[in-house]
Amino acid sequence: MLPFKVVCCNCGKEARKDEWLWRDDCGGAFDIVLDLQGRKFAELIQAKEESIRRYAQFIPVKELPSVHHGWTPIVKKSIGGVEVNFKLEYLSLGGSFKDRGAYVSVAKAKELGIGGIIVDSSGNAGISFSLMGLLSGMSVDVFVPKYAPEGKKNLLRLLQANVHEVNGDRMDVNREAVKAEREGSVYVGHWWNPYFIEGEKTMAYEAYEQIGNVDYVVVPVGSGTILLGLYKGYQELMELGALHEMPRIIAVQACGYSGICQELGARKECVTKTKLADGIAITDPPRRKQIVKAVKRTGGYGIIVEDEEIKEPLAELRRLGFIVEPTSATAYAALEQLVKAGFIKPGSKVLLPLTGSGLKLVDELVQIGAN
Amino acid sequence: MLPFKVVCCNCGKEARKDEWLWRDDCGGAFDIVLDLQGRKFAELIQAKEESIRRYAQFIPVKELPSVHHGWTPIVKKSIGGVEVNFKLEYLSLGGSFKDRGAYVSVAKAKELGIGGIIVDSSGNAGISFSLMGLLSGMSVDVFVPKYAPEGKKNLLRLLQANVHEVNGDRMDVNREAVKAEREGSVYVGHWWNPYFIEGEKTMAYEAYEQIGNVDYVVVPVGSGTILLGLYKGYQELMELGALHEMPRIIAVQACGYSGICQELGARKECVTKTKLADGIAITDPPRRKQIVKAVKRTGGYGIIVEDEEIKEPLAELRRLGFIVEPTSATAYAALEQLVKAGFIKPGSKVLLPLTGSGLKLVDELVQIGAN
Repeated sequence: MLPFKVVCCNCGKEARKDEWLWRDDCGGAFDIVLDLQGRKFAELIQAKEESIRRYAQFIPVKELPSVHHGWTPIVKKSIGGVEVNFKLEYLSLGGSFKDRGAYVSVAKAKELGIGGIIVDSSGNAGISFSLMGLLSGMSVDVFVPKYAPEGKKNLLRLLQANVHEVNGDRMDVNREAVKAEREGSVYVGHWWNPYFIEGEKTMAYEAYEQIGNVDYVVVPVGSGTILLGLYKGYQELMELGALHEMPRIIAVQACGYSGICQELGARKECVTKTKLADGIAITDPPRRKQIVKAVKRTGGYGIIVEDEEIKEPLAELRRLGFIVEPTSATAYAALEQLVKAGFIKPGSKVLLPLTGSGLKLVDELVQIGAN
Repeated sequence: MLPFKVVCCNCGKEARKDEWLWRDDCGGAFDIVLDLQGRKFAELIQAKEESIRRYAQFIPVKELPSVHHGWTPIVKKSIGGVEVNFKLEYLSLGGSFKDRGAYVSVAKAKELGIGGIIVDSSGNAGISFSLMGLLSGMSVDVFVPKYAPEGKKNLLRLLQANVHEVNGDRMDVNREAVKAEREGSVYVGHWWNPYFIEGEKTMAYEAYEQIGNVDYVVVPVGSGTILLGLYKGYQELMELGALHEMPRIIAVQACGYSGICQELGARKECVTKTKLADGIAITDPPRRKQIVKAVKRTGGYGIIVEDEEIKEPLAELRRLGFIVEPTSATAYAALEQLVKAGFIKPGSKVLLPLTGSGLKLVDELVQIGAN
């Protein structure tokens, strides 16, 4: 494990590492800053491991449990002359990319002697944390909106989480989760938690090992952990001498929840708020500024998509063999638009993570239709 | 592609290869017999491919489409001193091991100029065939029992299959599917189809490359394709000079559908027919004799499990991180019994495929309970 610091992303102050902190006094979220010590990427990989543990040296946790997470397959397709690399993040124990972040976070919480974790989620994050909590013998409290699909709540209960239903929107759910913090039980929600990003960044490492560098990364943005994880992973690959140019990051948001993309200059006359892309229906993610900065630094941009625009791409993904959640289709819809408009040129190489499994919500997918 | 023959497993007669045949005039099922020509396993692998295409030379199909199937992860756990290697077959595009067989079968049907496929299935096989049909632009007719869960039927419809509900039991469903054969549309059901086994055998190849040889393979048996596939794969590995001893195969069946295990000498006072292990609730699989012979040849045996005995193992699998269907838990329950009884000794190495995803049937899993 390389040395690291915990730093507030707002005021830059360094924080303690021996207790679970998720928000600085100034209101900022924390970041992990690794001291890469001039080392090289290749020499620090544990090449025999085909899981996140392969990158244990880059993860600020003393001991990573032997759970199989990560090392998801990549499938290459040519779309309008563009080489699109789908990373099948949904073929994972908990059925989504959030397994990575939950895995590292729960391992860290355990290292700090914490016995219970609290999360707010309407879906994938709750499932990933419940699964990791179950594996690690931790109690898990999940706060969900009352309107969340019964199937998802059932899955949480199956994984022995204590499910708390909250009347109100996603921000109310967050408030209730935070209020539930108590002796021995900490809030580990991915909106804030810096260790979550340390898990997500391994997706960039893997993609680099699987397909080398790419020109673009196209990702859906809710709280932004996948985007920030990929950004951090690619940045570290640069510092570690593996990569020589950052990919341009394209942030994709859905109508009604598009503040970040608007700040990035995207304009869209939205008809209604998204009902389909529930994984990214977040009004005001705490890491908003960071996300905007990351995208700008890579020369990327933002795209806003309407529900009507993702129905056909979702069905197209199935025709390619991918039974995924509607949120995954936002990125694919954006990609198709960018290729069509000539922003992404033929010959370019793109990474597109498929975020979550559609098997969790078959009934919803049937209602969406558009075969 | 190595040369091959299609041979009736009953009368030994050779059949034509240029049309889709699934049952010989004598009533026997067909087998594929490869001419391995004294070649070596290692020299015929396409080592860059991390999917079934890696083994294209051993698969009797001219062209395998570029779909990502196979190369599923293995997770190692020590259980009572026994090294158990779980092969996560459920982390697959269609959520089960049946993707392998459907992939090879549909590719073959396409090669023979067939435009439509017909299957009988209450679950995984129907999903795998529908997905492969969708990917290949084929029409898919799936015959299901009327009592099959609505969620599964919905998933089939989502994959654009024509779903035919049949009043009656699983044997009635099979009869209706077979009757539906017509010009251009053939019955490819996995109970009979020899190409299906050619897909399944790749699981043995992969496991061999991932973990070397094993002492035991523990598998649930319904129609027996996974067992026969593994048996054939390991046998070919022997002939190809890779393996020097066959693993002993343990067949696991559920109460009410245990004819094969009874023939293998297993005795059990069953209280009720299984309701949980619906994936293996098959009264009279056509390849029954072959299955019994395969198990006997390896010095293996049969085990029958009761629904009550699989509830806790199913929950235990979740505590290990595996959200799987109850059928997968039959094999795990049997394994635990064999280890406890001392039949499988500490220090032994076991392969145990986890057959299907639990995400397809969360509501059923919640009803089973036993956390």
